[in-house]
Amino acid sequence: MKLYDLELSGNCYKVRLFASLAGIPLDIEAVDFLDGEHKRPPLIELNLWGEIPILVDGKVVLRDSQAILVYLATRYEKEAWLPRDPAQMAEVVQWLSTAANEVQNGPNAARLVDKFGYAIDKADTLHRSAHILPLIDTHLSRHHWLALDRPTIAECAVFPYVALAPEGGVSLEPYPHIRQWINRIKELPDFLPMPGV
Amino acid sequence: MKLYDLELSGNCYKVRLFASLAGIPLDIEAVDFLDGEHKRPPLIELNLWGEIPILVDGKVVLRDSQAILVYLATRYEKEAWLPRDPAQMAEVVQWLSTAANEVQNGPNAARLVDKFGYAIDKADTLHRSAHILPLIDTHLSRHHWLALDRPTIAECAVFPYVALAPEGGVSLEPYPHIRQWINRIKELPDFLPMPGV
Repeated sequence: MKLYDLELSGNCYKVRLFASLAGIPLDIEAVDFLDGEHKRPPLIELNLWGEIPILVDGKVVLRDSQAILVYLATRYEKEAWLPRDPAQMAEVVQWLSTAANEVQNGPNAARLVDKFGYAIDKADTLHRSAHILPLIDTHLSRHHWLALDRPTIAECAVFPYVALAPEGGVSLEPYPHIRQWINRIKELPDFLPMPGV
Repeated sequence: MKLYDLELSGNCYKVRLFASLAGIPLDIEAVDFLDGEHKRPPLIELNLWGEIPILVDGKVVLRDSQAILVYLATRYEKEAWLPRDPAQMAEVVQWLSTAANEVQNGPNAARLVDKFGYAIDKADTLHRSAHILPLIDTHLSRHHWLALDRPTIAECAVFPYVALAPEGGVSLEPYPHIRQWINRIKELPDFLPMPGV
């Protein structure tokens, strides 16, 4: 099973992190992102979106980091990380949406501006960060983990760009419950770091 | 099972549409959105995000339209709409992310500006629409349905705000495959319309 990967991508890191925490073997293939390898064949034929990560497992080709987490958790029967119970599964999926939307367009986008020079409206990314981070912090003031009574793939989806927020000029100082949650994740067995985390 | 609902919300319509297509009974409770009913108790206690839809099924309370689709499909064992097979489930989940991110911040956000006067950067919404709609159109030039060989909850998640795009000044004229797909969905048994679709 091959992961087309960029070390500095939080979306790729979501997958590496979960694979490490859950003990799933991955064959990591580094993509030459600066040279645009993901924008031309053969990678563009694997992912029309022109983005990474891409997971290839035989005939299965997946382009979205949240979907890759769901695939790995179900393929390797890691029910602790993504339960089959409808209510518990839906609790986890709520946070996959939060990762794909609010976190992606908030802290992640702020970091894309500051660290990689993307032409994105920085004020908008800060506005979105100032909307979502207090909601997550309030939620974590009442819950130890995002979705259930233990870490799930919700953590793997949301943690990377929240933990990397300071690289986009978004301080986590006002969010004590987020900072405690980050520390809890870092203390998990087989936690895997990335640069900036 | 109660759905806190707004008729003009595409996110609420995702749930109503799926419930109709899959034959799932829902108790619809209209929310007084203009009066901000969703921003104060008791609804804010059900959803800290201050948004609708909200689904309440006994002790289960869900706030995200994609998660609600997953819940209904698994709770009512509608495997045709969300398979348990890891690869097929992940194919569907890819499109839940697309709905939560690119469609939400593209065509949906454009409509929020034009139809409801939201203070969102209209140019940004058009830029995002012009990014995602060609990708969906190209995908649909090769596939009859988004994720599998039949309609799934991916259709219910992506269809509403794509079909409503003209209400945000985003023409679907350049996207013939999307228009054909919209027609296919409208011809499904027990299809449910909403104003503007």
